[in-house]
Amino acid sequence: MAGIAQKLASNQKQVAISEFFEKNKHFLGFDSQARSLITAVKEAVDNALDACEEARILPTIRIQITKLDTKKDIIQLVVEDNGPGIPQKSIEKVFGQLLFGSRFHAIRQSRGQQGIGITGVVMYCQLTTGRTTHVRSKIATEPTAAVVDIGLDTRKNKATKANAGREIWYNDDGSAKEHGTEVTAQMKAKYQKGRQSVWQYLRMTSIVNPHAEIIFTDPEGEVHHWTRVTERLPTKVEGIKPHPHGIELGQLQRMLAESTDLNLNHFLLNNFSGVTNRARKELCQAAEIEGTRKIKSIKGDDIRHLLEAFQGERLFNGMPVKLLKPPTNCLSPIEEMLIKKGLSKTIDSRYVTTLTRVPSVTQGNPFQIEVGLIFGGNLPGDKPVEVLRFANRVPLMYQQGGCLLTKAIESVDWRQYGLDQAGGKGVPKGPAAILVHLASTNVQFTSEAKEALADNGEVMEEARKAMLEMGRGLRKHLEKKKKMAKTKEKFELINDILPAIAEKSAQILDRPVPGLAGSITKIMSAVISETTTEWNKETKQTDVEITLFNYTSRARAYTILATWPEKAGAGMVGNDRGGRKEALGVWAWKLDALQPGEQVKIHYSLRGLERNDWNETEVFFRGSQDVIGATKMDEKFLEEIRRQEKIVEEAGIEEPTEGEGQTPQSIEESEPVSEPTVAPPTGQRTLFGGES
Amino acid sequence: MAGIAQKLASNQKQVAISEFFEKNKHFLGFDSQARSLITAVKEAVDNALDACEEARILPTIRIQITKLDTKKDIIQLVVEDNGPGIPQKSIEKVFGQLLFGSRFHAIRQSRGQQGIGITGVVMYCQLTTGRTTHVRSKIATEPTAAVVDIGLDTRKNKATKANAGREIWYNDDGSAKEHGTEVTAQMKAKYQKGRQSVWQYLRMTSIVNPHAEIIFTDPEGEVHHWTRVTERLPTKVEGIKPHPHGIELGQLQRMLAESTDLNLNHFLLNNFSGVTNRARKELCQAAEIEGTRKIKSIKGDDIRHLLEAFQGERLFNGMPVKLLKPPTNCLSPIEEMLIKKGLSKTIDSRYVTTLTRVPSVTQGNPFQIEVGLIFGGNLPGDKPVEVLRFANRVPLMYQQGGCLLTKAIESVDWRQYGLDQAGGKGVPKGPAAILVHLASTNVQFTSEAKEALADNGEVMEEARKAMLEMGRGLRKHLEKKKKMAKTKEKFELINDILPAIAEKSAQILDRPVPGLAGSITKIMSAVISETTTEWNKETKQTDVEITLFNYTSRARAYTILATWPEKAGAGMVGNDRGGRKEALGVWAWKLDALQPGEQVKIHYSLRGLERNDWNETEVFFRGSQDVIGATKMDEKFLEEIRRQEKIVEEAGIEEPTEGEGQTPQSIEESEPVSEPTVAPPTGQRTLFGGES
Repeated sequence: MAGIAQKLASNQKQVAISEFFEKNKHFLGFDSQARSLITAVKEAVDNALDACEEARILPTIRIQITKLDTKKDIIQLVVEDNGPGIPQKSIEKVFGQLLFGSRFHAIRQSRGQQGIGITGVVMYCQLTTGRTTHVRSKIATEPTAAVVDIGLDTRKNKATKANAGREIWYNDDGSAKEHGTEVTAQMKAKYQKGRQSVWQYLRMTSIVNPHAEIIFTDPEGEVHHWTRVTERLPTKVEGIKPHPHGIELGQLQRMLAESTDLNLNHFLLNNFSGVTNRARKELCQAAEIEGTRKIKSIKGDDIRHLLEAFQGERLFNGMPVKLLKPPTNCLSPIEEMLIKKGLSKTIDSRYVTTLTRVPSVTQGNPFQIEVGLIFGGNLPGDKPVEVLRFANRVPLMYQQGGCLLTKAIESVDWRQYGLDQAGGKGVPKGPAAILVHLASTNVQFTSEAKEALADNGEVMEEARKAMLEMGRGLRKHLEKKKKMAKTKEKFELINDILPAIAEKSAQILDRPVPGLAGSITKIMSAVISETTTEWNKETKQTDVEITLFNYTSRARAYTILATWPEKAGAGMVGNDRGGRKEALGVWAWKLDALQPGEQVKIHYSLRGLERNDWNETEVFFRGSQDVIGATKMDEKFLEEIRRQEKIVEEAGIEEPTEGEGQTPQSIEESEPVSEPTVAPPTGQRTLFGGES
Repeated sequence: MAGIAQKLASNQKQVAISEFFEKNKHFLGFDSQARSLITAVKEAVDNALDACEEARILPTIRIQITKLDTKKDIIQLVVEDNGPGIPQKSIEKVFGQLLFGSRFHAIRQSRGQQGIGITGVVMYCQLTTGRTTHVRSKIATEPTAAVVDIGLDTRKNKATKANAGREIWYNDDGSAKEHGTEVTAQMKAKYQKGRQSVWQYLRMTSIVNPHAEIIFTDPEGEVHHWTRVTERLPTKVEGIKPHPHGIELGQLQRMLAESTDLNLNHFLLNNFSGVTNRARKELCQAAEIEGTRKIKSIKGDDIRHLLEAFQGERLFNGMPVKLLKPPTNCLSPIEEMLIKKGLSKTIDSRYVTTLTRVPSVTQGNPFQIEVGLIFGGNLPGDKPVEVLRFANRVPLMYQQGGCLLTKAIESVDWRQYGLDQAGGKGVPKGPAAILVHLASTNVQFTSEAKEALADNGEVMEEARKAMLEMGRGLRKHLEKKKKMAKTKEKFELINDILPAIAEKSAQILDRPVPGLAGSITKIMSAVISETTTEWNKETKQTDVEITLFNYTSRARAYTILATWPEKAGAGMVGNDRGGRKEALGVWAWKLDALQPGEQVKIHYSLRGLERNDWNETEVFFRGSQDVIGATKMDEKFLEEIRRQEKIVEEAGIEEPTEGEGQTPQSIEESEPVSEPTVAPPTGQRTLFGGES
């Protein structure tokens, strides 16, 4: 026994992070040879998209995969972008040093966060083929591009460099390239097709990055081109300061220890988002610390008290101190219309609905859930629905079963929304695809490979609410479709048969054919609305026409309401009937009483949109008799839209005067909906691509 | 545009590994508060078990959980072991430095591998409560224990120390503790019960560590005690050198660069397992490099050629160079009997079968699959079977859906083996629990939290084979049970009714009651065997009795064979009928012809076992007429046992003379079974705990 403890201890030593990840390369997504290739493409493309977005450049990304040695499974991957480029002296660190990057400490939405990805690719190439990775990069302010071969000294987590130099970079057409980066990597890998493939990864990337042009040349030389469907770059994101609600004790201790602020007042105002001058005062009082106290003197229990004031456990005037929500300009959702465009581009289907929830907060980190649902068309009806998962605009291809986003889908009873589902649990079956996107300043994955989201109550709740809301939309669509089909059938039948009978009878009796309008109206006994939303090539506008028929025997008075893409910046023109704005994106027309057998038309055009931006107008009515083809307006829905509009307007705006005037809502108060089953269909848009 | 590239680059910096894991603490298993507590217990208990195993100490581990502040969810965890202790100067590194440890470069089975776990706990405590972790440790050669409070400077990945000192460590009974370690950690966490709980984690740990005593005091003060069921420590594992089949090019380059060997000959013999002197010569020839070449001169293509020789892509005499398999003394499987004991202890059921496959190799890493199946008893019949996953004797509690071991279970069509399963896929339903354990020198998890295994073709195949084999065992059991029950019913009916009829008839006719043996035999028309396997309290031996009845009208001759735990070191005594060994663990008796109506008994006792080590003897027969209650011997099964026995004997043994004599089998040749559907029930043992 003697000496065993010493003997065991003597074998212990420090391991470099690069040795760690070399041994555990599967943590980074390098497990099978097929997946390794996808991981490499993903890391290079993510970097390209991030760099272009930060530099406000519309990205054009070329990916080429070549089989160098089929017998030994050696593949060459080239990824070229038109990003800002990387300064020569930074190249070795970006590509040859793990945990080196600019995004780790920033609180804003970005694809890459850790500074691991592309260095992992260099490491994998070196490990499996012994070869270095060739990097060429040009920045706009220099006449030539820097070139260098990068490897990784895994014992030290440092790059190895070879063949460094400079050269003029010519485009294929002979012109000189202005700026961009090109990575040429050779690795042991397998190229394959199917659901988990490079092609599928790029297709999904193009759905959530409609501003990117992606050109992929596969090993057979076939070129796949995903065109840019919008010239609009994603909203520019700003880094924000941490929010007091997301701070943990250890972090607060460290912030204080590293602070150079004069005193607690300055510390609170300089280092956090959501802390106004009023809140600063109240926090100090709740924590029972003078705001003028020097930072170095704040220790032990003081820090604990301050954190308790942050978390509302210590009160000011008997209430938790109210803080502003963190600003949400650190997030860049894809937004409904672009998701719809992306989905329509890549999946042929009959019905598309998308929905972007207002931003929420978990542990001080703003996040936002977006969902899309595609139904019908040529999607197979007897298989589980396709699940398209995304985080910060990056497709998640593996570990579907272990991902929070999948669990959110599985938690909904889809049977009540028109999809098959064994036992009301699990991924539903049916001719549908469900898209779900999380935008967040801190996406919590289950591992470095970034393929599945870790459990988080708030994110789960938001995703679930979005699913329920979308499910209700699907049910309504299916019900409306059924009802419209029935009415249409009846109407056509009556219009065909009744005149024929009337004519025949008149002929036999040798009397004139009677007028049938009254009879048809009596038999139909319904008010029907028909809506068309069509792109007008000549005017480059979207023309909308709503027709209302009164096929009942009494006069009817209605207010008709319609959704329109106000939020996306569209303008309404040629709206001769006038009307008025009811809420953001909802217009209303109060119509005169419509006599039996009469019809009325509303028409207007939308400008400032592109083709396919707006293919479906949702129509509502106020009035006592149901209208087939429109939905009775739920006034709660309107209120909710107005309330959310107000939240969005207020978010992140400092209150004008301190201590008086309106109190900004605390995060808890302004969370959009607290009860999961009554979430209103906020901002939901529906598009009929056609009726079967 | 100008300057954007520089601006982006200027924000980049190096992140410390500790900062990385602080931000991504969910990678380490610290996501929800409930899971964080389980993770902390797991890391501390794994360390204790590893240390005891290396020091060859039978572990006694005490875990105590106390709620310090219910409102703020602050919990104190104390884990105390009787391991060898940690020398004072090592404590700060073990507890306060990430990626510090002894097992990272070692190639052998151990619970911990990365040097992250317990430091992660210290980090989590500091982050959530601001508190340090108290460590007390005593080694046998010092009179007092070292005590110290450990924190973590995450910016530098270094420990912070406070209140370091020494003290005498008293046990509860007032005696001085000889050696051991105690960790006291305070963290934000939630204690909960149920399927994912500390209790469940410890229960599962006790199943696969039957040599450990575990005492758990829960927050209500209730003490849960899992006793030690065997005094046998797990087989001692030896670190091995890497095997040429598992080497990648980058690794070979580094090994050469860091080598101090004289020349290639020495390099090959000194640094690899499986390379004999013959293989060394052949490898040099296949690679076309002189064995006497200096290491420094081996570069570029030479290295590639050497690797190709390793991988059999370059040939010697037209054949791949044959290498010995890596030795398997680096693995320590639990072994069938102990799994059975552990399962029987914690789950009440009727039927238990377990199976340990022979070691296999993936990417140069030896590994071994063990499985167990429990059926019947009071397990619920309408729910999915309980899946108990383990890797290197550590229970896996989370991410069941994303784990390779679950996928192996799901890939089997269990319907043909008597369990319900929708569509023949997924986790089956029924009154059963399935245990699966992977022992490996390099367990590839999907993340640092070590909760799910990453995909690997070879491991999947082995696990699947084990499942199929076990499934066949279950089906046989269910069929045999059914057949025996039917025969018994028939026999009892005949034995009841026939004599009654005979008596009545005789009475009516006033004639003597006729002898019925012949008639009963004619009606039964079967040969029946009955076997009992019972623990004898007095002799401390297991008594086995096999009875064979001939209820047919002809004489019958049989050889009867029975399984017995030879591998586990049992001895057979009192076997008056002699017989002979057929294969490892299979004994055979050639019996004289049995006349109609006759019966014969075989009995013997097994010594060297403990109670419940052996509760069921499997009986086979050779002969033309079927025997109810025994299985016709499949000669292939015997051959397979003999072949595997030979493999085990040969494994890791250097061949006696170079270049001549028997050639050791290459890894490919010696893999036990290549076709998944015909894997024989190797080493399968079946235990009837009783019949329902």
